[in-house]
Amino acid sequence: MGADHAGLQVLSYDDCLRHLRTARVGRVAFVADGEPVILPVNHGMDGDAVVFRSSPGSKLDAASDEMPVAFEVDNFDADRHSGWSVVVRGTARLVTDRSETQRLTRLGVWPWAESVERRHWIRIRPFEITGRQIPPHGD
Amino acid sequence: MGADHAGLQVLSYDDCLRHLRTARVGRVAFVADGEPVILPVNHGMDGDAVVFRSSPGSKLDAASDEMPVAFEVDNFDADRHSGWSVVVRGTARLVTDRSETQRLTRLGVWPWAESVERRHWIRIRPFEITGRQIPPHGD
Repeated sequence: MGADHAGLQVLSYDDCLRHLRTARVGRVAFVADGEPVILPVNHGMDGDAVVFRSSPGSKLDAASDEMPVAFEVDNFDADRHSGWSVVVRGTARLVTDRSETQRLTRLGVWPWAESVERRHWIRIRPFEITGRQIPPHGD
Repeated sequence: MGADHAGLQVLSYDDCLRHLRTARVGRVAFVADGEPVILPVNHGMDGDAVVFRSSPGSKLDAASDEMPVAFEVDNFDADRHSGWSVVVRGTARLVTDRSETQRLTRLGVWPWAESVERRHWIRIRPFEITGRQIPPHGD
């Protein structure tokens, strides 16, 4: 397994996808008015695309058309000082096609906060998926 | 406790700071070449400022002077569909003053990946600290 410039082990593409599929929550980052915004979302995977629900009128929803985004999942073990992270870089777009919306709904991704309806789907089309891990001490 | 437009409970400033102090890992988001970048870091708190170490020559290090950043910590329980997140918006700067560096070093924040020396400190001066929580089902 290779190491990057920061001395972290580089994860394979398959390991990255596995982590993306297993993780229940990720964070999406995007640029609004020139400033970075970061939001936790619970997501699903549709092939290698990250999908999640958004409420109409949200910041992300408003700035939807092929907007550059970064999406991150991670899992760190504070006691062992180990863990991994996976970052997806891609473009986000609002899913407007009804048949695609219906198909995504069948993925079973539901927002945990249920008091507001998040009926819009956002899809991140990836152009780069990379991952790193810090092995436990002593490895 | 108030709720936001997405139906999430709004955390108090004190609760936000408590979560920031307890969390061991956060994610910093910034803009590089017009695109969002997101990186996990292990951080410390110096009052209400987020501090972490960076390796010389990193993207964040290069684009340091009063750069707008967002920093996020969270903790979600997938089984209970509950959790919280705290987001700090602020500006990042590289700490160059030697006495400040020495003081920060005494905070005991060490990067977990130790194979590369991260001798630079980045400080996020917050202009907004906000938090949300999703209460467990049934609450």
